[in-house]
Amino acid sequence: MSDLRPVPTREECAALDAADPLAGLREEFLLPEGVLYLDGNSLGALPRRAPERVREMVEQEWGHGLIRSWNDAGWYGMPRRLGARLSPMLGAAPGQVVVCDSTSVNLFKVLSAALRLRPGRRTVLAENAAFPTDLYITEGVTGVFDGARSVLLPSAADLDDHLGEDVAAVVLSHVDYRTGELLDMAAVTERVHRAGALMIWDVCHTAGALPVEFDRCQVDFAVGCGYKYLNGGPGAPAFLYVAERHQADARQPLSGWFGHARPFAFEPGYEPVDGVGRFLTGTPPLLGMAALDASLDVWEKVDLQAVRTKSLALTDLFMDLVEPLGLPVVTPRQQTLRGSQVALRHPDGYAVVQALIERGVIGDFRAPDLIRFGFTPLYLSYTDVWDSARHLAEVLETGEWREERFTRRGAVT
Amino acid sequence: MSDLRPVPTREECAALDAADPLAGLREEFLLPEGVLYLDGNSLGALPRRAPERVREMVEQEWGHGLIRSWNDAGWYGMPRRLGARLSPMLGAAPGQVVVCDSTSVNLFKVLSAALRLRPGRRTVLAENAAFPTDLYITEGVTGVFDGARSVLLPSAADLDDHLGEDVAAVVLSHVDYRTGELLDMAAVTERVHRAGALMIWDVCHTAGALPVEFDRCQVDFAVGCGYKYLNGGPGAPAFLYVAERHQADARQPLSGWFGHARPFAFEPGYEPVDGVGRFLTGTPPLLGMAALDASLDVWEKVDLQAVRTKSLALTDLFMDLVEPLGLPVVTPRQQTLRGSQVALRHPDGYAVVQALIERGVIGDFRAPDLIRFGFTPLYLSYTDVWDSARHLAEVLETGEWREERFTRRGAVT
Repeated sequence: MSDLRPVPTREECAALDAADPLAGLREEFLLPEGVLYLDGNSLGALPRRAPERVREMVEQEWGHGLIRSWNDAGWYGMPRRLGARLSPMLGAAPGQVVVCDSTSVNLFKVLSAALRLRPGRRTVLAENAAFPTDLYITEGVTGVFDGARSVLLPSAADLDDHLGEDVAAVVLSHVDYRTGELLDMAAVTERVHRAGALMIWDVCHTAGALPVEFDRCQVDFAVGCGYKYLNGGPGAPAFLYVAERHQADARQPLSGWFGHARPFAFEPGYEPVDGVGRFLTGTPPLLGMAALDASLDVWEKVDLQAVRTKSLALTDLFMDLVEPLGLPVVTPRQQTLRGSQVALRHPDGYAVVQALIERGVIGDFRAPDLIRFGFTPLYLSYTDVWDSARHLAEVLETGEWREERFTRRGAVT
Repeated sequence: MSDLRPVPTREECAALDAADPLAGLREEFLLPEGVLYLDGNSLGALPRRAPERVREMVEQEWGHGLIRSWNDAGWYGMPRRLGARLSPMLGAAPGQVVVCDSTSVNLFKVLSAALRLRPGRRTVLAENAAFPTDLYITEGVTGVFDGARSVLLPSAADLDDHLGEDVAAVVLSHVDYRTGELLDMAAVTERVHRAGALMIWDVCHTAGALPVEFDRCQVDFAVGCGYKYLNGGPGAPAFLYVAERHQADARQPLSGWFGHARPFAFEPGYEPVDGVGRFLTGTPPLLGMAALDASLDVWEKVDLQAVRTKSLALTDLFMDLVEPLGLPVVTPRQQTLRGSQVALRHPDGYAVVQALIERGVIGDFRAPDLIRFGFTPLYLSYTDVWDSARHLAEVLETGEWREERFTRRGAVT
């Protein structure tokens, strides 16, 4: 790291906060006192309006409206309505996004559809370092389609070596969940198309973190989750995108009644509805949808390009501040190559994270040695970043992470 | 209908209520004033404790605990913990039930697993009159498994004619969602086993309506929903059952990270965890789980046999009361042959249901001509049933259902 810059002082950070056009958005969230939350890339914070919106669904729509709320409260339309609210953040023209199920289930659907759209090809490429559920689902899908197989690339950089004539689809994460590395969606999609394959993007670590442009990049399918940067709440429903040009021919095997052309005609044979709705399956998880709905109210006030600008400033700042600590930074320094997180290596990363959490700085640990910090411009300030870096320095300087209560592993990390 | 009995008076119903050992449970629910709710077989009523439990998850566990709640609030264990709470109601020894996803997604998983457990057999039998999503998912599963096909029986009574050597699995509803007819779980399962096939029960209209005995009946797999008689809320997570004897060999293709042996080791290869947990897929929908958790608090106070006794008394009473109206009753009169609903035929059933709803009597309509009333002993009284039957009589006597505002179809019925 030769490009050492002058490290900003806390006062300089306070000045940045005073000039931050997004600073007021912090008020849209309810965060606990004394917490510096750098884990919004794992579970986003609670939007201020979410408790009331959920309460309204529980007490009014469920308790009072009962079954009538399917019509009167618009429950039936929620997968599409929330999809429409998300679309501008994803660079998707209307009618291509629905909110439903989990990311894993949605990947099963779109990957199955992709294999059917390329019947002469049976190979699916994925990246060894992908978030594992993407690999497990790829394994699951290729395990049921006759002759299908998956090939795991050592890294996305090896894509060209494997883009042969048998490749039906490529599944990649836009941002690597560990390193924070960002791929070039347009360029990669184009290479995949040139090889005759279909491109499926996992944007779990992108949606709400930076502008995404599915349509412009000619993406075929995408999946993403509602509970990270989107702040939709724990286990929030996920979403999927199906490019309009594929919808008429796309068939997915999780063909439940919500994807039927006439779900309330109760016909015995499946006939998929026109459009992206054919990727719906069962009854939607409405309580989770209410929370996500409230979180989207916040996003309506936000210019995602401004979020990206601040995100890059926050991650730049954090890397500048922690560089003197000497921990290897695995996140790319180059702005165009990273998402909205910074990952550092430490052989005892688990214990360091636990020691930070006790200080109120919440990041997370990913085996074997990564300390991961997510930067969410809607509710993090420059001084928050400064204070977090200071705590990390103190944890390392004092060696307090060596205490036994930090090194003992919990059930879930 | 030759066995005309003396029809009880409202006073006699009030006496039955006064002697009803379950009467106090009505206080466990929040129901709107002026509503007689006979649609708990479609969406159960709001348990009194649900709003507070959901609020606690939103404000405390999510808002305050944030990512720490995966450990501290026990989020990680919820699919198994709720499954364990449900197990006694399903006659299932521990370790065979998990709460997750939707009924449709869960049927995809267990039917796929069943086909794999019978590799030499490729036929799946289902019933033409099943709730359509079961048929659509059966179509979806057989569409991806090489050589698999589904055969729709005209009715469950035709099962024996089709139980040939190619039948891998049979999917049936324990209670028919339209007629309310109840199948003999033990006898049907035994016939299916004698033919060498596996039995998958859909207990959407059974769980919480009457005692179910998966273990005693040697059931192989089952799925069911959380939002009907269980009162788990709109789009509540569903559940699935996998008999312990199948778990070691059962593999399902929706192999997401929550079903992995070590989900937080983030390994690239899928290795299913021991036990029913291998049927989990993605991150669980936690807000919905909180509501279901609260609904299970009520069930802990209830003897399901007493629920069944009252359910049969309520449905007997309703059938006695409406018999003089002359509408064909499609629900079996014989107690052992019905679940907890009563369905009547009327050529203008849609309009009749709308007219009843305006009077505060909420039942529902199923095309082409069924009026469906669900009877939920936890929050319905004998006088409620008497009053509902009286309203139905008045709607028919006055002919008010002929008014245009009732005959005009809404988006969702």
